[in-house]
Amino acid sequence: MKKVKNAFYAQSGGVTAVINASACGVIETVNKSKKIHKVLAGENGILGALNEELIDTSKESKTNIAKLKQTPGGAFGSCRFKLQDPIKQKKEYERLFEVFAAHDIGYFFYNGGGDSQDTTFKVSEMAKKLNFPLKCVGIPKTVDNDLPYTDCSPGFGSVAKYIATSTLEAGLDVKSMAETSTKVFILEVMGRHAGWIAAASCLAATKVGDPPHIILLPEVPFDKTKFITQVKQTVKEKGYCVIVASEGTQTKNGKFLADSGLTDAFGHKQLGGVAPILAGMISKIGLKNHWAVADYLQRSARHIASKTDLDQAYAVGEHAVRLAIAGKTAVMPIIKRISHSPYKWKIETAPLKNVANIEKTMPRKFISKNGFEITQAGKTYLSPLIKGEAPTKYVNGLPDVAELKKIKVKKKLNYFIS
Amino acid sequence: MKKVKNAFYAQSGGVTAVINASACGVIETVNKSKKIHKVLAGENGILGALNEELIDTSKESKTNIAKLKQTPGGAFGSCRFKLQDPIKQKKEYERLFEVFAAHDIGYFFYNGGGDSQDTTFKVSEMAKKLNFPLKCVGIPKTVDNDLPYTDCSPGFGSVAKYIATSTLEAGLDVKSMAETSTKVFILEVMGRHAGWIAAASCLAATKVGDPPHIILLPEVPFDKTKFITQVKQTVKEKGYCVIVASEGTQTKNGKFLADSGLTDAFGHKQLGGVAPILAGMISKIGLKNHWAVADYLQRSARHIASKTDLDQAYAVGEHAVRLAIAGKTAVMPIIKRISHSPYKWKIETAPLKNVANIEKTMPRKFISKNGFEITQAGKTYLSPLIKGEAPTKYVNGLPDVAELKKIKVKKKLNYFIS
Repeated sequence: MKKVKNAFYAQSGGVTAVINASACGVIETVNKSKKIHKVLAGENGILGALNEELIDTSKESKTNIAKLKQTPGGAFGSCRFKLQDPIKQKKEYERLFEVFAAHDIGYFFYNGGGDSQDTTFKVSEMAKKLNFPLKCVGIPKTVDNDLPYTDCSPGFGSVAKYIATSTLEAGLDVKSMAETSTKVFILEVMGRHAGWIAAASCLAATKVGDPPHIILLPEVPFDKTKFITQVKQTVKEKGYCVIVASEGTQTKNGKFLADSGLTDAFGHKQLGGVAPILAGMISKIGLKNHWAVADYLQRSARHIASKTDLDQAYAVGEHAVRLAIAGKTAVMPIIKRISHSPYKWKIETAPLKNVANIEKTMPRKFISKNGFEITQAGKTYLSPLIKGEAPTKYVNGLPDVAELKKIKVKKKLNYFIS
Repeated sequence: MKKVKNAFYAQSGGVTAVINASACGVIETVNKSKKIHKVLAGENGILGALNEELIDTSKESKTNIAKLKQTPGGAFGSCRFKLQDPIKQKKEYERLFEVFAAHDIGYFFYNGGGDSQDTTFKVSEMAKKLNFPLKCVGIPKTVDNDLPYTDCSPGFGSVAKYIATSTLEAGLDVKSMAETSTKVFILEVMGRHAGWIAAASCLAATKVGDPPHIILLPEVPFDKTKFITQVKQTVKEKGYCVIVASEGTQTKNGKFLADSGLTDAFGHKQLGGVAPILAGMISKIGLKNHWAVADYLQRSARHIASKTDLDQAYAVGEHAVRLAIAGKTAVMPIIKRISHSPYKWKIETAPLKNVANIEKTMPRKFISKNGFEITQAGKTYLSPLIKGEAPTKYVNGLPDVAELKKIKVKKKLNYFIS
């Protein structure tokens, strides 16, 4: 009888409110199947494999593994680390396979975005070349929603729900202050190259005239004159104006607004933030304004995760294990939309080969003619992704999150010197 | 038999996630009692009285009035407008009483912070002087928690819960990224003169070493050298550092950090934000950082309101009506803490006379010796205020908020020209 092997699972790139739900999907599915022995999680992504820092998930309680579903961030640590090109530098890959062999690893699950799936693909190619029995399956994740093939990316729906809710709530605030105080509110959201997150704020408007009034997307070149005219017009008509701006808002020559060279009184260059730049423009025309930058708050807000997103994050983890057990490699489970309303979806499979080379930006048909709004087609796409609530359990008024023991397996190899 | 009179209710100053719960408390209590005919709500605070823009709340459905409890912002519009000094300029006061007489108003409920309660007091003094039968009762509200007499201010507990939860969630995010990416995260919160909101972030730490690692309060003079040393030390020890900074963080000569004279590439002066200033300092020592500015998001986040806060906001509205019916004037219902654990509280009454002149900042005993942390005494005070959840109803994935008809009563007077 063939010996049952272990699986390696790691988290990569920017984390999300639901990436741990994918981890939970992987671990619970492995534990239920009898085809994989156990999941060893890499501490800090692929670095955990290189450094032989492997967390033995079988030492965690079932309760804590289940609680991963309500824990934001990356429970095993993530990384921004790209493996070197295997043709130029084989050392890292050799080390990986040395670690996999030492710990009887026959399955490689990598939970991340485009770049991370490029790594998964390269590992699969190297395994093939070395005749190393390793099934490599990518697990999609990114708040940016820019992965190809999949209808949406796990992690996005929850940020979308957070941003739509925050826009609605802050919109009500500004509206009530506008007569004698703040007239313009700017919310800066993530999305350096794709405007999906900013676009999702459109869902806050349930009737004509509701905020957000202006959405700034990286896909639409920023035109200061047009923008200021729109702000003035909105304040004139509605009494106030709510703006949601992608951090990647840029001029037509590709210059990010956030790179407008802010310096402080001491001459130090300041980090961007498109919101303060827009606020400066608006103050110049005499409109009192406030601005917020959601930053990590938006992508870690598990307390207001979308149930749809959470279910999908779990499902891609679960299906990744099923694919690997079925002998598939160099693939990634993806979400396929069956219908908008009622929203139905299923899991399909995509090849990893080209994932890293395709960045899914907002289609033009989702953007209104003036560039500041989202069309009905866009709303139809976005709407189901924020639906459903997945309440966190609270203890003493705070979210109850998993506290893993993170017991590592004993090292068998020497330290890795890259 | 004495004719039953109407009540005037208005919202004033910065709004909160639960100010409408106070409105609901007022309206429902009036509607249940037979002693007051109905509530006329001022559109945009006291301006509604001056301009005779009075919303007839009896035209709203019971369901919508109840839904105020889950609607952030100021449902009737708020204002930042201070009545002139009655000794120097009586015109505004004369107009107020003209409107009150025209609409048979015998009760004046003003829902706001210190400055607003000063208005309530002045109106009560003027009523006495003019022998106008008007019972004036203040309803406390402020996210800043700086009102005197009351143990806490309605509105604060919900911001505290939002900030503590966000610190916990973003803390998990940074922790998982720190090995290869962001090492320092800065969250800027409200609080220009009092650090209560920043202090509340301390509740995110459930064990030693948990974020937040550094809290910056307006009460503690900012010392750059000490701050940078603390950041370096924290990163060295814990691998990452989470900072929560009050917008009012200031140097020992009272200069706000946010007023550090940011200018953009075009030489335009930029609006503050203490977070980007701190981020600039941290970048200079070579630590990758991210920063968020919660701004209106924190005070409008009804979706994560504290049940304790919501109950108290309703209770002060309800008791304000009871006090007025009992013939009290120039008073304000306040929250009196009976015990910390189990947390018990009741409503008492305070005079309005000095409310505006006392600003309750953080007591020194709540602040650690190094000035960056909150002591056990502070945690004991803060902890019960964020307890309990008050889930919003969601429709299509978004909070279901009250959409009032806001039908105004017919004007009986000429326009007011101030």
